Amino acid sequence: MHIELAENYGFCFGVKRAIKIAEENKDSATYGPLIHNSKEIARLDKDFNVALEEDFKAFKTGDKAIVRTHGIVKDELENLHKSGVKVVDATCPFVTKPQEIAQEMSEKGYSVVIFGDEKHPEIKGVKSYATHGAEVVTSVEDLKDLKLHERIALIAQTTRKVEDYMEIANYLIPRYKEVCVFNTICNATFENQEAVRKLSKKADIMLVIGGKNSSNTKQLFSIAKENCSDSYHIEDENELDFSWFENKQYCGVTAGASTPDWIIQNVIKTVKETDV
Amino acid sequence: MHIELAENYGFCFGVKRAIKIAEENKDSATYGPLIHNSKEIARLDKDFNVALEEDFKAFKTGDKAIVRTHGIVKDELENLHKSGVKVVDATCPFVTKPQEIAQEMSEKGYSVVIFGDEKHPEIKGVKSYATHGAEVVTSVEDLKDLKLHERIALIAQTTRKVEDYMEIANYLIPRYKEVCVFNTICNATFENQEAVRKLSKKADIMLVIGGKNSSNTKQLFSIAKENCSDSYHIEDENELDFSWFENKQYCGVTAGASTPDWIIQNVIKTVKETDV
Repeated sequence: MHIELAENYGFCFGVKRAIKIAEENKDSATYGPLIHNSKEIARLDKDFNVALEEDFKAFKTGDKAIVRTHGIVKDELENLHKSGVKVVDATCPFVTKPQEIAQEMSEKGYSVVIFGDEKHPEIKGVKSYATHGAEVVTSVEDLKDLKLHERIALIAQTTRKVEDYMEIANYLIPRYKEVCVFNTICNATFENQEAVRKLSKKADIMLVIGGKNSSNTKQLFSIAKENCSDSYHIEDENELDFSWFENKQYCGVTAGASTPDWIIQNVIKTVKETDV
Repeated sequence: MHIELAENYGFCFGVKRAIKIAEENKDSATYGPLIHNSKEIARLDKDFNVALEEDFKAFKTGDKAIVRTHGIVKDELENLHKSGVKVVDATCPFVTKPQEIAQEMSEKGYSVVIFGDEKHPEIKGVKSYATHGAEVVTSVEDLKDLKLHERIALIAQTTRKVEDYMEIANYLIPRYKEVCVFNTICNATFENQEAVRKLSKKADIMLVIGGKNSSNTKQLFSIAKENCSDSYHIEDENELDFSWFENKQYCGVTAGASTPDWIIQNVIKTVKETDV
């Protein structure tokens, strides 16, 4: 079995930065999962006593709260500060940017349209910065009934596919006077997506490693699947099913931006060991 | 022979307005052709003594200069005012708008990209308003070697096809941080284009009437040609060739935004008279 890693995969700048921040802030808690990878979160808890706190109100004066890489809702951030909680911000700078754009463009009178998943913490956060509200859409269909101003600011979740984003832009541009399209899909997302596209065209089995709730991993998986029908989204080596590998010669491997290298290596090791 | 006019055709708001302004300003001269239709210009000269002056310097203090519907270069307009020429502005408001956008966005630090014909007076005018310059392109190919800032303002010539404009937008958006797309293609252009598209799918011969130097007429002709191979761009009835109509049953007719109704009616009359 030939095993090949995508040219770009795994930890992005924002995730590496957030983990470093967490490691430097022992005996603290993140508000919500720092990154979308439960195994890495468990490691931070075990090795650095960085707990995971889902309840915002559990933070008390003097506590140290780490803001997750996806960012949080503006009001909650302000309330943490007001409550005297020591806030350590691990929001990815590529997420801070769309938050700032949402606020600035909303205040300038643009209708803010966000392409992304409204249940995803990143999008809840970005939306909360649009002073006069924002519309969150996942498809052209969602746009059809919206009442928007003549001037629109279009923002994308950092982990979306650019082709899907362009569909949204292409619907809006001919219909409105001004559409400012902000390319907020982050470079790591671009590069990982390009790399999985290339690899999945050659491989006869693709493994996409990452949290099941990880948006960028889901996008990688959908691209892999387009080109290689035998593509599997797994969280770690325990989910491998060895019947997948029967009659396969070329195994492509990629991983989401929140998948630590040690998990990727465990997967590769397990595939190699069972390959006879 | 069934003869059918497109649902929308001919004189647009800006052209009607410009002609009205010219008729109300007898004994004057337009700087450059008021509209792209030599026959209508000849009529204004004959009936209202509105001459055509191609040389900017010919205007002297006290003269009355009518600014053409396509607008003129900013410096020239300023110089006319400075020279004490009485300026009557017949620039179409849908052209004034992209001029204003070019100036505003250029001053805000955006790279201004104009999709249009750099030799067309409208585009010469719009470009001149971009304080720090602008790039004029007609195709994606033209974009490839440009050095642009991360923030781009994209403007279209008012008479362009939206599909072609979208190609330019689709090239830029994934490659730059922010692309503000201004939908400066005017509604009349949209409507006339939609109507010729519909009609040319049914007709077996299409007549597109308008000046040979008229940008919007050329676009109408290109759409007609896509759907009906027997499409002809004529300026008036004198260019009709009756061999075109052999074995034809369904003649579609449309006209550019600067084509007066009397020319359209002459064409229809001539086709009817010779149809046996």
